[in-house]
Amino acid sequence: MRNFITVEGCEGVGKTYQMRMLKQYCEENGYDNVVFTREPGGSDIAEQIRRILLDANNSAMDDLCEAFLYAASRIQHLKDIVKPALCQGKVVFCDRFVHSSYVYQGIGRGLGLDKIVKLNELAVGEYMPEFTIFLDLSPEQAFKRKGGADKTDRMEAVDYAFHLSVYQGYKQLIAEHPERFEVVDASGSKEQTQAKLREILVRRGIIR
Amino acid sequence: MRNFITVEGCEGVGKTYQMRMLKQYCEENGYDNVVFTREPGGSDIAEQIRRILLDANNSAMDDLCEAFLYAASRIQHLKDIVKPALCQGKVVFCDRFVHSSYVYQGIGRGLGLDKIVKLNELAVGEYMPEFTIFLDLSPEQAFKRKGGADKTDRMEAVDYAFHLSVYQGYKQLIAEHPERFEVVDASGSKEQTQAKLREILVRRGIIR
Repeated sequence: MRNFITVEGCEGVGKTYQMRMLKQYCEENGYDNVVFTREPGGSDIAEQIRRILLDANNSAMDDLCEAFLYAASRIQHLKDIVKPALCQGKVVFCDRFVHSSYVYQGIGRGLGLDKIVKLNELAVGEYMPEFTIFLDLSPEQAFKRKGGADKTDRMEAVDYAFHLSVYQGYKQLIAEHPERFEVVDASGSKEQTQAKLREILVRRGIIR
Repeated sequence: MRNFITVEGCEGVGKTYQMRMLKQYCEENGYDNVVFTREPGGSDIAEQIRRILLDANNSAMDDLCEAFLYAASRIQHLKDIVKPALCQGKVVFCDRFVHSSYVYQGIGRGLGLDKIVKLNELAVGEYMPEFTIFLDLSPEQAFKRKGGADKTDRMEAVDYAFHLSVYQGYKQLIAEHPERFEVVDASGSKEQTQAKLREILVRRGIIR
Protein backbone atom coordinates (compact mmCIF):
# COMPACT_ATOMS: atom_id res chain seq x y z
CA MET A 1 0.00 0.00 0.00
CA ARG A 2 1.55 3.27 -1.16
CA ASN A 3 2.79 5.61 1.60
CA PHE A 4 2.56 2.89 4.24
CA ILE A 5 6.04 2.32 5.67
CA THR A 6 6.81 -0.09 8.49
CA VAL A 7 9.89 -0.16 10.70
CA GLU A 8 11.33 -3.38 12.12
CA GLY A 9 14.24 -4.54 14.20
CA CYS A 10 15.24 -6.55 17.25
CA GLU A 11 14.77 -5.41 20.85
CA GLY A 12 17.16 -2.65 21.85
CA VAL A 13 18.07 -1.59 18.32
CA GLY A 14 16.92 1.96 19.08
CA LYS A 15 13.83 1.82 16.88
CA THR A 16 11.71 4.02 19.15
CA TYR A 17 14.49 6.61 19.45
CA GLN A 18 15.06 6.70 15.68
CA MET A 19 11.33 7.17 15.05
CA ARG A 20 11.20 10.00 17.59
CA MET A 21 14.15 11.74 15.93
CA LEU A 22 12.59 11.31 12.50
CA LYS A 23 9.26 12.66 13.76
CA GLN A 24 11.00 15.69 15.22
CA TYR A 25 12.85 16.24 11.93
CA CYS A 26 9.56 16.05 9.98
CA GLU A 27 7.84 18.50 12.33
CA GLU A 28 10.72 20.98 12.24
CA ASN A 29 10.85 20.86 8.47
CA GLY A 30 7.17 21.34 7.76
CA TYR A 31 6.24 17.77 6.78
CA ASP A 32 2.74 17.94 8.27
CA ASN A 33 1.67 15.07 6.06
CA VAL A 34 3.48 12.36 8.02
CA VAL A 35 1.94 10.18 10.76
CA PHE A 36 3.98 8.11 13.23
CA THR A 37 2.21 5.22 14.91
CA ARG A 38 2.72 1.84 16.51
CA GLU A 39 0.25 -0.85 17.48
CA PRO A 40 -2.02 -0.40 19.42
CA GLY A 41 -1.31 3.32 18.82
CA GLY A 42 -4.27 5.17 20.28
CA SER A 43 -6.89 2.66 19.23
CA ASP A 44 -8.87 1.92 22.39
CA ILE A 45 -9.92 -1.62 21.46
CA ALA A 46 -6.44 -2.53 20.22
CA GLU A 47 -5.09 -1.19 23.52
CA GLN A 48 -7.43 -3.50 25.49
CA ILE A 49 -6.11 -6.45 23.47
CA ARG A 50 -2.51 -5.36 24.01
CA ARG A 51 -3.04 -5.25 27.79
CA ILE A 52 -3.88 -8.98 27.76
CA LEU A 53 -0.77 -9.70 25.67
CA LEU A 54 1.63 -7.79 27.88
CA ASP A 55 0.21 -8.88 31.26
CA ALA A 56 2.99 -10.84 32.99
CA ASN A 57 0.30 -12.93 34.76
CA ASN A 58 -0.73 -14.41 31.40
CA SER A 59 2.34 -16.63 31.03
CA ALA A 60 0.07 -19.66 30.37
CA MET A 61 -1.01 -18.10 27.09
CA ASP A 62 -0.95 -20.47 24.13
CA ASP A 63 1.59 -19.25 21.53
CA LEU A 64 -0.99 -19.46 18.75
CA CYS A 65 -3.51 -17.54 20.87
CA GLU A 66 -0.84 -14.85 21.22
CA ALA A 67 -0.39 -14.71 17.44
CA PHE A 68 -4.16 -14.32 16.95
CA LEU A 69 -4.32 -11.54 19.54
CA TYR A 70 -1.51 -9.63 17.84
CA ALA A 71 -3.37 -10.00 14.54
CA ALA A 72 -6.64 -8.81 16.14
CA SER A 73 -4.91 -5.76 17.61
CA ARG A 74 -3.35 -5.11 14.19
CA ILE A 75 -6.72 -5.19 12.40
CA GLN A 76 -8.26 -2.68 14.80
CA HIS A 77 -5.23 -0.36 14.65
CA LEU A 78 -5.35 -0.49 10.84
CA LYS A 79 -9.03 0.46 10.90
CA ASP A 80 -8.78 3.21 13.52
CA ILE A 81 -5.41 4.80 12.71
CA VAL A 82 -3.65 3.66 9.52
CA LYS A 83 -6.47 3.49 6.95
CA PRO A 84 -7.97 6.91 7.83
CA ALA A 85 -4.50 8.53 7.57
CA LEU A 86 -3.70 6.86 4.22
CA CYS A 87 -7.16 7.89 2.94
CA GLN A 88 -6.25 11.50 3.73
CA GLY A 89 -3.15 11.11 1.58
CA LYS A 90 -0.74 11.00 4.52
CA VAL A 91 2.48 9.00 4.82
CA VAL A 92 2.25 6.52 7.70
CA PHE A 93 5.29 5.16 9.55
CA CYS A 94 4.32 2.16 11.67
CA ASP A 95 6.73 0.90 14.33
CA ARG A 96 6.45 -2.90 13.89
CA PHE A 97 3.86 -4.68 11.71
CA VAL A 98 3.39 -8.13 10.16
CA HIS A 99 7.12 -8.88 9.94
CA SER A 100 7.36 -8.74 13.73
CA SER A 101 4.72 -11.47 13.91
CA TYR A 102 6.49 -13.52 11.24
CA VAL A 103 9.74 -13.54 13.18
CA TYR A 104 8.57 -13.42 16.82
CA GLN A 105 5.68 -15.89 16.58
CA GLY A 106 6.43 -17.77 13.35
CA ILE A 107 10.17 -18.29 13.84
CA GLY A 108 11.03 -17.31 17.45
CA ARG A 109 8.15 -19.22 19.03
CA GLY A 110 8.36 -21.92 16.36
CA LEU A 111 4.73 -21.73 15.18
CA GLY A 112 5.93 -21.87 11.58
CA LEU A 113 6.46 -18.97 9.22
CA ASP A 114 3.86 -20.23 6.70
CA LYS A 115 1.12 -20.33 9.32
CA ILE A 116 1.82 -16.82 10.62
CA VAL A 117 2.08 -15.44 7.08
CA LYS A 118 -1.34 -16.94 6.20
CA LEU A 119 -2.85 -15.64 9.42
CA ASN A 120 -1.62 -12.13 8.72
CA GLU A 121 -2.71 -12.25 5.08
CA LEU A 122 -6.23 -12.87 6.38
CA ALA A 123 -5.80 -10.02 8.87
CA VAL A 124 -4.34 -7.20 6.76
CA GLY A 125 -5.38 -8.11 3.19
CA GLU A 126 -4.02 -5.51 0.75
CA TYR A 127 -2.62 -3.33 3.57
CA MET A 128 0.94 -4.56 3.21
CA PRO A 129 3.68 -1.91 3.51
CA GLU A 130 5.06 -0.11 0.45
CA PHE A 131 8.43 -0.99 2.00
CA THR A 132 9.90 -1.92 5.36
CA ILE A 133 12.87 -0.31 7.07
CA PHE A 134 14.98 -2.86 8.95
CA LEU A 135 17.29 -1.42 11.59
CA ASP A 136 20.09 -3.95 11.53
CA LEU A 137 21.90 -4.70 14.78
CA SER A 138 22.81 -8.12 16.16
CA PRO A 139 21.01 -9.06 19.41
CA GLU A 140 24.39 -9.21 21.15
CA GLN A 141 25.07 -5.54 20.41
CA ALA A 142 21.43 -4.61 21.03
CA PHE A 143 21.29 -6.26 24.46
CA LYS A 144 24.51 -4.56 25.53
CA ARG A 145 23.14 -1.20 24.45
CA LYS A 146 19.83 -1.70 26.30
CA GLY A 147 21.40 -2.96 29.51
CA GLY A 148 19.36 -6.17 29.91
CA ALA A 149 15.73 -7.25 29.75
CA ASP A 150 12.78 -5.61 31.46
CA LYS A 151 11.07 -8.31 33.51
CA THR A 152 7.70 -6.56 33.68
CA ASP A 153 7.13 -7.02 29.96
CA ARG A 154 6.46 -10.61 28.92
CA MET A 155 7.94 -10.08 25.43
CA GLU A 156 11.26 -8.86 26.85
CA ALA A 157 11.63 -11.48 29.59
CA VAL A 158 12.47 -14.24 27.16
CA ASP A 159 16.03 -15.29 26.61
CA TYR A 160 18.86 -14.45 24.29
CA ALA A 161 18.46 -17.56 22.10
CA PHE A 162 14.96 -16.38 21.24
CA HIS A 163 16.19 -12.97 20.15
CA LEU A 164 18.94 -14.54 18.09
CA SER A 165 16.37 -16.67 16.22
CA VAL A 166 14.28 -13.52 15.68
CA TYR A 167 17.29 -11.69 14.21
CA GLN A 168 18.08 -14.63 11.93
CA GLY A 169 14.39 -14.69 10.99
CA TYR A 170 14.53 -11.09 9.81
CA LYS A 171 17.66 -11.88 7.82
CA GLN A 172 15.86 -14.81 6.19
CA LEU A 173 12.86 -12.64 5.21
CA ILE A 174 15.17 -10.03 3.73
CA ALA A 175 17.11 -12.67 1.77
CA GLU A 176 13.84 -14.05 0.36
CA HIS A 177 12.32 -10.66 -0.54
CA PRO A 178 15.07 -8.03 -0.71
CA GLU A 179 12.80 -5.73 -2.75
CA ARG A 180 10.48 -5.31 0.22
CA PHE A 181 13.14 -4.00 2.59
CA GLU A 182 15.47 -1.09 3.17
CA VAL A 183 18.21 -2.28 5.50
CA VAL A 184 19.83 0.35 7.73
CA ASP A 185 23.10 -0.48 9.49
CA ALA A 186 22.34 0.51 13.11
CA SER A 187 25.71 -0.40 14.60
CA GLY A 188 27.06 3.14 14.56
CA SER A 189 26.01 6.16 16.66
CA LYS A 190 22.36 7.21 16.89
CA GLU A 191 23.12 10.19 14.70
CA GLN A 192 24.79 8.03 12.04
CA THR A 193 21.79 5.69 11.97
CA GLN A 194 19.39 8.61 11.68
CA ALA A 195 21.39 10.04 8.78
CA LYS A 196 21.29 6.70 6.94
CA LEU A 197 17.55 6.44 7.55
CA ARG A 198 16.91 9.90 6.11
CA GLU A 199 19.07 9.17 3.07
CA ILE A 200 16.76 6.28 2.24
CA LEU A 201 13.65 8.42 2.68
CA VAL A 202 15.12 11.07 0.36
CA ARG A 203 15.95 8.44 -2.24
CA ARG A 204 12.40 7.04 -1.90
CA GLY A 205 10.92 10.51 -2.34
CA ILE A 206 9.25 10.58 1.08
CA ILE A 207 11.25 13.62 2.21
CA ARG A 208 13.54 15.99 0.30
CA MET B 1 -11.50 -35.49 16.94
CA ARG B 2 -13.11 -38.51 18.58
CA ASN B 3 -15.29 -37.76 21.65
CA PHE B 4 -15.36 -34.04 20.91
CA ILE B 5 -18.99 -33.01 20.33
CA THR B 6 -20.11 -29.44 19.68
CA VAL B 7 -23.60 -28.03 20.04
CA GLU B 8 -24.91 -25.24 17.84
CA GLY B 9 -28.10 -23.28 17.29
CA CYS B 10 -29.53 -19.78 17.01
CA GLU B 11 -30.14 -17.44 19.96
CA GLY B 12 -33.06 -18.52 22.13
CA VAL B 13 -33.18 -22.12 20.90
CA GLY B 14 -32.73 -23.38 24.47
CA LYS B 15 -29.20 -24.66 23.96
CA THR B 16 -28.01 -23.80 27.46
CA TYR B 17 -31.09 -25.40 29.04
CA GLN B 18 -30.72 -28.58 26.96
CA MET B 19 -27.04 -28.87 27.93
CA ARG B 20 -27.93 -28.42 31.61
CA MET B 21 -30.59 -31.15 31.41
CA LEU B 22 -28.16 -33.46 29.62
CA LYS B 23 -25.46 -32.77 32.21
CA GLN B 24 -27.90 -33.56 35.02
CA TYR B 25 -28.92 -36.78 33.26
CA CYS B 26 -25.28 -37.83 32.87
CA GLU B 27 -24.53 -37.09 36.54
CA GLU B 28 -27.59 -38.97 37.78
CA ASN B 29 -26.75 -41.97 35.64
CA GLY B 30 -23.10 -42.32 36.55
CA TYR B 31 -21.51 -40.96 33.39
CA ASP B 32 -18.54 -39.40 35.18
CA ASN B 33 -16.57 -39.40 31.94
CA VAL B 34 -18.46 -36.51 30.35
CA VAL B 35 -17.36 -32.84 30.42
CA PHE B 36 -19.65 -29.92 29.56
CA THR B 37 -17.99 -26.68 28.55
CA ARG B 38 -18.44 -23.53 26.52
CA GLU B 39 -15.97 -20.87 25.46
CA PRO B 40 -14.31 -19.27 27.44
CA GLY B 41 -15.31 -21.99 29.93
CA GLY B 42 -13.11 -21.47 32.96
CA SER B 43 -10.00 -20.53 31.02
CA ASP B 44 -8.78 -17.30 32.59
CA ILE B 45 -7.07 -15.89 29.49
CA ALA B 46 -9.99 -16.83 27.23
CA GLU B 47 -12.28 -15.08 29.73
CA GLN B 48 -10.21 -11.87 29.48
CA ILE B 49 -10.57 -12.00 25.68
CA ARG B 50 -14.31 -12.64 25.97
CA ARG B 51 -14.79 -9.58 28.19
CA ILE B 52 -13.46 -7.36 25.37
CA LEU B 53 -15.83 -9.06 22.89
CA LEU B 54 -18.94 -8.66 25.02
CA ASP B 55 -18.27 -5.13 26.28
CA ALA B 56 -21.11 -2.98 24.94
CA ASN B 57 -18.69 0.01 24.84
CA ASN B 58 -16.68 -1.73 22.11
CA SER B 59 -19.24 -1.17 19.35
CA ALA B 60 -16.50 0.33 17.10
CA MET B 61 -14.84 -3.08 16.91
CA ASP B 62 -13.85 -4.14 13.40
CA ASP B 63 -15.80 -7.27 12.37
CA LEU B 64 -12.61 -9.07 11.37
CA CYS B 65 -10.96 -8.11 14.67
CA GLU B 66 -13.98 -9.71 16.38
CA ALA B 67 -13.50 -12.93 14.39
CA PHE B 68 -9.80 -13.05 15.36
CA LEU B 69 -10.65 -12.51 19.03
CA TYR B 70 -13.19 -15.35 18.98
CA ALA B 71 -10.54 -17.58 17.40
CA ALA B 72 -7.95 -16.53 20.02
CA SER B 73 -10.37 -17.32 22.84
CA ARG B 74 -11.11 -20.66 21.16
CA ILE B 75 -7.41 -21.62 20.99
CA GLN B 76 -6.87 -20.89 24.67
CA HIS B 77 -10.05 -22.74 25.73
CA LEU B 78 -8.96 -25.74 23.63
CA LYS B 79 -5.58 -25.75 25.34
CA ASP B 80 -6.82 -25.22 28.89
CA ILE B 81 -10.07 -27.23 28.92
CA VAL B 82 -10.82 -29.39 25.87
CA LYS B 83 -7.45 -31.00 25.07
CA PRO B 84 -6.67 -32.07 28.67
CA ALA B 85 -10.15 -33.65 28.99
CA LEU B 86 -9.87 -35.51 25.66
CA CYS B 87 -6.37 -36.68 26.66
CA GLN B 88 -7.91 -38.22 29.79
CA GLY B 89 -10.33 -40.14 27.55
CA LYS B 90 -13.35 -37.99 28.42
CA VAL B 91 -16.25 -37.06 26.19
CA VAL B 92 -16.41 -33.27 25.75
CA PHE B 93 -19.61 -31.39 24.88
CA CYS B 94 -18.81 -27.83 23.83
CA ASP B 95 -21.62 -25.27 23.62
CA ARG B 96 -20.74 -23.42 20.36
CA PHE B 97 -17.48 -23.83 18.41
CA VAL B 98 -16.18 -23.07 14.90
CA HIS B 99 -19.61 -23.30 13.26
CA SER B 100 -20.78 -20.34 15.33
CA SER B 101 -17.93 -18.29 13.87
CA TYR B 102 -18.72 -19.53 10.36
CA VAL B 103 -22.32 -18.35 10.55
CA TYR B 104 -22.11 -15.32 12.88
CA GLN B 105 -18.95 -13.74 11.47
CA GLY B 106 -18.64 -15.38 8.04
CA ILE B 107 -22.27 -15.16 6.95
CA GLY B 108 -24.12 -12.91 9.46
CA ARG B 109 -21.50 -10.14 9.45
CA GLY B 110 -20.66 -10.78 5.81
CA LEU B 111 -16.93 -11.40 6.22
CA GLY B 112 -17.18 -14.40 3.90
CA LEU B 113 -17.49 -18.04 4.86
CA ASP B 114 -14.19 -19.02 3.14
CA LYS B 115 -12.20 -16.48 5.13
CA ILE B 116 -13.64 -17.54 8.49
CA VAL B 117 -13.21 -21.22 7.67
CA LYS B 118 -9.52 -20.63 6.82
CA LEU B 119 -9.03 -18.57 9.98
CA ASN B 120 -10.50 -21.30 12.15
CA GLU B 121 -8.53 -24.03 10.38
CA LEU B 122 -5.39 -22.17 11.43
CA ALA B 123 -6.79 -21.84 14.96
CA VAL B 124 -8.04 -25.36 15.75
CA GLY B 125 -6.05 -27.60 13.40
CA GLU B 126 -7.08 -31.22 13.87
CA TYR B 127 -9.41 -30.36 16.78
CA MET B 128 -12.58 -30.43 14.71
CA PRO B 129 -15.63 -32.03 16.34
CA GLU B 130 -16.45 -35.72 15.82
CA PHE B 131 -19.95 -34.41 15.11
CA THR B 132 -22.04 -31.34 15.77
CA ILE B 133 -25.54 -31.27 17.25
CA PHE B 134 -27.69 -28.56 15.66
CA LEU B 135 -30.76 -27.56 17.66
CA ASP B 136 -33.10 -26.52 14.89
CA LEU B 137 -35.56 -23.70 15.55
CA SER B 138 -36.29 -20.74 13.28
CA PRO B 139 -35.27 -17.33 14.69
CA GLU B 140 -38.94 -16.28 14.64
CA GLN B 141 -39.89 -19.07 17.05
CA ALA B 142 -36.68 -18.64 19.06
CA PHE B 143 -37.17 -14.88 19.59
CA LYS B 144 -40.78 -15.41 20.72
CA ARG B 145 -39.65 -18.02 23.20
CA LYS B 146 -36.89 -15.82 24.62
CA GLY B 147 -39.06 -12.69 24.90
CA GLY B 148 -36.77 -10.28 23.02
CA ALA B 149 -33.12 -9.31 22.99
CA ASP B 150 -30.88 -8.45 25.94
CA LYS B 151 -29.42 -5.02 25.23
CA THR B 152 -26.44 -5.43 27.55
CA ASP B 153 -24.90 -8.09 25.36
CA ARG B 154 -23.53 -6.80 22.08
CA MET B 155 -24.13 -10.13 20.31
CA GLU B 156 -27.79 -10.15 21.23
CA ALA B 157 -28.51 -6.49 20.49
CA VAL B 158 -28.32 -7.00 16.75
CA ASP B 159 -31.45 -7.29 14.70
CA TYR B 160 -33.72 -10.02 13.47
CA ALA B 161 -32.39 -9.99 9.89
CA PHE B 162 -28.96 -10.88 11.25
CA HIS B 163 -30.33 -13.89 13.12
CA LEU B 164 -32.23 -15.02 10.07
CA SER B 165 -29.03 -14.98 8.00
CA VAL B 166 -27.31 -16.93 10.77
CA TYR B 167 -30.06 -19.55 10.73
CA GLN B 168 -29.87 -19.83 6.95
CA GLY B 169 -26.08 -20.08 7.31
CA TYR B 170 -26.39 -23.11 9.57
CA LYS B 171 -28.81 -24.68 7.08
CA GLN B 172 -26.29 -24.09 4.28
CA LEU B 173 -23.45 -25.71 6.28
CA ILE B 174 -25.65 -28.72 7.02
CA ALA B 175 -26.68 -29.04 3.36
CA GLU B 176 -23.00 -28.96 2.31
CA HIS B 177 -21.76 -31.44 4.94
CA PRO B 178 -24.73 -33.44 6.31
CA GLU B 179 -22.33 -36.12 7.65
CA ARG B 180 -20.89 -33.64 10.15
CA PHE B 181 -24.21 -32.81 11.81
CA GLU B 182 -26.98 -34.32 13.91
CA VAL B 183 -30.03 -32.11 13.50
CA VAL B 184 -32.49 -32.02 16.42
CA ASP B 185 -35.95 -30.54 15.85
CA ALA B 186 -36.27 -28.10 18.77
CA SER B 187 -39.74 -26.78 17.99
CA GLY B 188 -41.49 -29.05 20.51
CA SER B 189 -41.41 -28.90 24.31
CA LYS B 190 -38.11 -28.84 26.19
CA GLU B 191 -38.69 -32.43 27.26
CA GLN B 192 -39.33 -33.57 23.68
CA THR B 193 -36.13 -31.88 22.49
CA GLN B 194 -34.13 -33.49 25.31
CA ALA B 195 -35.54 -36.91 24.44
CA LYS B 196 -34.53 -36.48 20.76
CA LEU B 197 -31.07 -35.34 21.80
CA ARG B 198 -30.55 -38.40 24.01
CA GLU B 199 -31.77 -40.74 21.25
CA ILE B 200 -28.95 -39.45 19.05
CA LEU B 201 -26.37 -39.91 21.80
CA VAL B 202 -27.55 -43.49 22.35
CA ARG B 203 -27.36 -44.20 18.61
CA ARG B 204 -23.86 -42.67 18.54
CA GLY B 205 -22.78 -44.83 21.49
CA ILE B 206 -22.04 -41.87 23.78
CA ILE B 207 -24.66 -42.94 26.35
CA ARG B 208 -26.69 -46.13 26.68
